[in-house]
Amino acid sequence: MSHEQEHPKKAFGWAARDSSGVLSPFRFSRRETGEKDVTFKVLYCGICHSDLHNVKNEWGSSTYPLVPGGHEIVGEVTEVGSNVKKFKVGDKVGVGCLVGAYQSCDSCTDHLENYCPKQILTYGAKYYDGTTTYGGYSDIMVADEHFIVRIPNNLPLDSAAPLLCAGITTYSPLRYYGLDKPGMHVGVVGLGGLGHVAVKFAKAMGVKVTVISTSPKKEEEAIKHLGADSFLAAIGTMDGIIDTVSAQHPLLPLIGLLKSHGKLVMVGAPEKPLELPVFPLLMGRKMVAGSLIGGMKETQEMIDFAAKHNITTEIEVIPIDYLNNAMERLAKAEVRYRFVIDIGNTLKASP
Amino acid sequence: MSHEQEHPKKAFGWAARDSSGVLSPFRFSRRETGEKDVTFKVLYCGICHSDLHNVKNEWGSSTYPLVPGGHEIVGEVTEVGSNVKKFKVGDKVGVGCLVGAYQSCDSCTDHLENYCPKQILTYGAKYYDGTTTYGGYSDIMVADEHFIVRIPNNLPLDSAAPLLCAGITTYSPLRYYGLDKPGMHVGVVGLGGLGHVAVKFAKAMGVKVTVISTSPKKEEEAIKHLGADSFLAAIGTMDGIIDTVSAQHPLLPLIGLLKSHGKLVMVGAPEKPLELPVFPLLMGRKMVAGSLIGGMKETQEMIDFAAKHNITTEIEVIPIDYLNNAMERLAKAEVRYRFVIDIGNTLKASP
Repeated sequence: MSHEQEHPKKAFGWAARDSSGVLSPFRFSRRETGEKDVTFKVLYCGICHSDLHNVKNEWGSSTYPLVPGGHEIVGEVTEVGSNVKKFKVGDKVGVGCLVGAYQSCDSCTDHLENYCPKQILTYGAKYYDGTTTYGGYSDIMVADEHFIVRIPNNLPLDSAAPLLCAGITTYSPLRYYGLDKPGMHVGVVGLGGLGHVAVKFAKAMGVKVTVISTSPKKEEEAIKHLGADSFLAAIGTMDGIIDTVSAQHPLLPLIGLLKSHGKLVMVGAPEKPLELPVFPLLMGRKMVAGSLIGGMKETQEMIDFAAKHNITTEIEVIPIDYLNNAMERLAKAEVRYRFVIDIGNTLKASP
Repeated sequence: MSHEQEHPKKAFGWAARDSSGVLSPFRFSRRETGEKDVTFKVLYCGICHSDLHNVKNEWGSSTYPLVPGGHEIVGEVTEVGSNVKKFKVGDKVGVGCLVGAYQSCDSCTDHLENYCPKQILTYGAKYYDGTTTYGGYSDIMVADEHFIVRIPNNLPLDSAAPLLCAGITTYSPLRYYGLDKPGMHVGVVGLGGLGHVAVKFAKAMGVKVTVISTSPKKEEEAIKHLGADSFLAAIGTMDGIIDTVSAQHPLLPLIGLLKSHGKLVMVGAPEKPLELPVFPLLMGRKMVAGSLIGGMKETQEMIDFAAKHNITTEIEVIPIDYLNNAMERLAKAEVRYRFVIDIGNTLKASP
């Protein structure tokens, strides 16, 4: 069955057709609003770095046609199912990385759908009904209300969108690893889409923040614009580090910056293994740990925290026609700090 | 000044003179019992794997002559200083890896002298007075009472000795990383001096224990003799793993055995960095961490716990004359599981 006829609701978006990664207009379809579903008109969608990996099949798991935009989709509710309890037409909402999970496993019971082994990603995955999921580079979205996040009214939709991925990816480890206590000293490695939000969250939690970057030109930006406390770190001074870098990089100097019992938390995903020096871990009872987005409950908590502290992301809003250029610039890290596609005003179905 | 005349108390032991690592009889001296010091006649001393590294200067920090035996020294108190409060003549006591520390730094305040940057190792280090520390392959020992551990009467001194290093090295991370909850499932990698005690402690804490070893012949030993629950582990089943292996080895399979949020704790110290795959850490919010012996307070707690649960180590008691042979066998891992030198009965000062 064609992508246009698979489901009853007409949808329109941009898709990659093969691993060249070039995106172009694509007609497809979405399911009817089920009894627990929320349907919303997509207004903005952030471009996550993993979209870039996926359109080019760099992780080897992509299927085509692929409609990316799985992590940072926001819009306005247009229809709700008969059993939907938390949302109504007109609400501002968003969808992050997940649209489904097992919901009765240990992870789901603990509100950690992000670690559920049967989680369903927002795009390029198989939904419960066997059909493929399509992301937010599209005009409408349908998702189970469990995976819908409410966007508080005081947050601008465009710059709030990246919170659903970049935001929760950095907020969750600050909380889980206990790096959220006022007076603590936390480092943020890499000042990109993830790093710049990590700085904002850590500062709002009352933590002293040092940005660790190989680009000296980012010093002024880090301190004056984002509110970091410093740009240079001393050996043995940090309670924790959020490492957002997905390129290969040495861990030894970062481990050295930690105090005893300090925590180096990786949220970027280098393709190849990194070198782990074990002796320095032993000598200071340090740890190297990972963290991956967050559960739905914590994602809502993160958005509410952001609203309370007026935290948004730094974005460059682009029209959908600029998408392929944006992808090229993203590959070269030429964005400050996140592209957000203005879907509502610029994505129009061709006649 | 000669080693014999440096201090007033005559002492006799075995020392390595150079990086050949060959040990031979050695006359030296120890300080008078200071007001906070405890002097004891050494009865047994365990041979820790690090003794082997140090006599051969494999970590590059050895100075000669070197009297090893820094970690597992036990004996009977013969003299106490005027300000010693906790010990009296005749008490059974022990000294582990440390004989000094800064005592007013954060680590020491938290009873974590083992992470104090100014800690003084039991042998091959500079003491406060600038003299060299000598270990337990010797007839007497003098140490500040803060670094003396009481050995409960029901523990046999010989098989209790290795608890002071192998015991605390595995007990401490089980506690600190919260792998001590009844019903948890913990893996122990490597069934040697450290690993076999880890199994006993974890079992006594009520934890299900799986031994992970590349030697199939250790299965019977692990299960029938040490009380482990299993020898084969399934993917994604463990809350934590204590990894005692100091040879190079792959971490990926171990990380795979962990449940989400599981902890891989390294207590062995491979010389070169290991390969750390980051993606699997992220996907399950897992961590790779280190731990190094324990503080004095926790060492006493560990010994008391061992006494309560009748935990001792599996040892081969040797006369001092067998020392060089034992070192050779230790290098080939041909010991089940710890050599302990019978100092009291076999070390006699030559006329």
